[in-house]
Amino acid sequence: MSKEVKALEAKTKGDFASFNQTVIERRDLHPDDVAIDIKYCGICHSDVSMVQWQGAHFPMVPGHEISGIVSAVGKNVKNFKPGDRVGVGCFVNSCGKCAACKAGQEQFCEKGTVIVFDSKDYDGTITQGGYSQAIVVKDHFVLHIPDELSLADAAPLLCAGITTYNPLKQYNIGKGSKVAVIGLGGLGHIAVQFAAKMGADVTVFGHSESKRDEAEKFGASSYEILKDPEDFQPLVGQFDFILNTVAVNLDLNNYMPLLKFNGVFCYVGIPSDEIHFNLFSIFGNQANLTASNVGGIAMTQEMLNFAAENDVKPQIEMIGIADVPEAYQNILDSKVHYRYVIDMSTLK
Amino acid sequence: MSKEVKALEAKTKGDFASFNQTVIERRDLHPDDVAIDIKYCGICHSDVSMVQWQGAHFPMVPGHEISGIVSAVGKNVKNFKPGDRVGVGCFVNSCGKCAACKAGQEQFCEKGTVIVFDSKDYDGTITQGGYSQAIVVKDHFVLHIPDELSLADAAPLLCAGITTYNPLKQYNIGKGSKVAVIGLGGLGHIAVQFAAKMGADVTVFGHSESKRDEAEKFGASSYEILKDPEDFQPLVGQFDFILNTVAVNLDLNNYMPLLKFNGVFCYVGIPSDEIHFNLFSIFGNQANLTASNVGGIAMTQEMLNFAAENDVKPQIEMIGIADVPEAYQNILDSKVHYRYVIDMSTLK
Repeated sequence: MSKEVKALEAKTKGDFASFNQTVIERRDLHPDDVAIDIKYCGICHSDVSMVQWQGAHFPMVPGHEISGIVSAVGKNVKNFKPGDRVGVGCFVNSCGKCAACKAGQEQFCEKGTVIVFDSKDYDGTITQGGYSQAIVVKDHFVLHIPDELSLADAAPLLCAGITTYNPLKQYNIGKGSKVAVIGLGGLGHIAVQFAAKMGADVTVFGHSESKRDEAEKFGASSYEILKDPEDFQPLVGQFDFILNTVAVNLDLNNYMPLLKFNGVFCYVGIPSDEIHFNLFSIFGNQANLTASNVGGIAMTQEMLNFAAENDVKPQIEMIGIADVPEAYQNILDSKVHYRYVIDMSTLK
Repeated sequence: MSKEVKALEAKTKGDFASFNQTVIERRDLHPDDVAIDIKYCGICHSDVSMVQWQGAHFPMVPGHEISGIVSAVGKNVKNFKPGDRVGVGCFVNSCGKCAACKAGQEQFCEKGTVIVFDSKDYDGTITQGGYSQAIVVKDHFVLHIPDELSLADAAPLLCAGITTYNPLKQYNIGKGSKVAVIGLGGLGHIAVQFAAKMGADVTVFGHSESKRDEAEKFGASSYEILKDPEDFQPLVGQFDFILNTVAVNLDLNNYMPLLKFNGVFCYVGIPSDEIHFNLFSIFGNQANLTASNVGGIAMTQEMLNFAAENDVKPQIEMIGIADVPEAYQNILDSKVHYRYVIDMSTLK
């Protein structure tokens, strides 16, 4: 017997005024399912993009940075019990059998990873996300939230956190590493904290003097405003790793030479236009260019534990469910200060 | 007392008809120098590019794939003696003290790597290359040519060989690796042999049916002609490593998805135009794009030893010194069949 829960849905593509409180159904618990009472849900730029996407299904309940409390578990579930503090991130199902799944990289499942909202699950239903009172998720995709981390702070870590933690770990950032983070927004301010707490020396590349103090507060040792080609010259050959959290097209011919030999430039913000650069810009340092796409479930749990142990916290602005349309517009207008989190108790 | 030696010089930028037999001076031996009687010199596409380059010094003696016999050594030289079979590749000096030099990556010397021709050496002289009877080179930059390798076959390995061997080693190609090589020319036909002899399963991406048999002869297990987007579909997610030996602009949006998770696309042929692709083409496999620039001295010696032990041989077409202008034109017109080598005994 499925359960009706309250939710906030976007009724029409691109129309933030069409957000509407409604009731959706959550499935009966399968033997390996966990039912969660949702307490908080972060708002990510990709939620906004999905509501604007031509290919999306409407009405849609967005939300993929979910934290809450376990209310019930299926009969085969061993790792969770009612009352546990838990989170759900970007995806809620994968085949579990392919090479990617076996390698803990469920986000690259060969059968197709099922995203937490607007994605067709293997049973044919379209998933509905975290802007709701409750959700039912297969246990493998549920994360434990350590006691040191508040449920509100944990929410944004489930996307923004893993998106930045995963590439830092993949490229072995640690003591002695020189890391640059481009952008100090929702992703960037968490990336700086992770990299610094991993022991790296962190520089933030920003666009305005106003964020210098904040960059240092998050653990950066320096802050550089890079506008003209000559601004880049003193930094040539300085960095092991540059994490670009900004989904705009940068002049890579300026950025790539900033890397050391075999350094890595990694996008986590993906611009819609093609990127372009001259390969001579990496002929002197054999640098790499890559992109990183969230991270697997085991890595996400590791990230939450690391955040708890090292006091990594997103800067959040708590809002009520009625504030969502305005928050979406602010995100589009770059007026958001780090990360919005919806207090789901306001969904009534 | 410097020594006069015969040489072939290009007198005028871009004018292959201006090649002219002349006499140049080689320096007296410094205590750490090796004097070499040159027997063979390969012709590389970059020789042709240099003769066409606006910034080059004329008259110029090109040539950076040099093999020959030691005629004399300076008083401090311990690793070479007269009669030794030796080679000289792309560079002849570096500071020896910077991080790159200490890491055996002399090609990235922070003070500036001195190229074997048309490069200002630390004493202020402009280097003159291998289209000559003899050369004097600091011992660190001289390679031993194993007995199993003929001097003529060794010559092209000193650039084309190390250029392809170095990235294959850097990215740990070996048994179990799936490698694709784009192009089957001077670089490609050696890359295929190296990768196959390292134990990889090698596919060649070519443009015409005519090279299928040759690809297999060099050790490729398959040959694919990729023209239309649908030609790429069956190969998505198949390769650990793609080595692009062709200096033209490919549609990377088709090529990047052919890589496995964390796979690497490596340029060794550098197109003059900017490359461009959409990052969504690597969002599903987190693939890397990079470029590789020859290799260090120790790696070059390892490459020669590997070639000797594993019977890796370039396909060469031997020519006389008088054939150089026509050979240059053929290289420009893509009429060269793998690699020209100049028999230096024809320089009289």
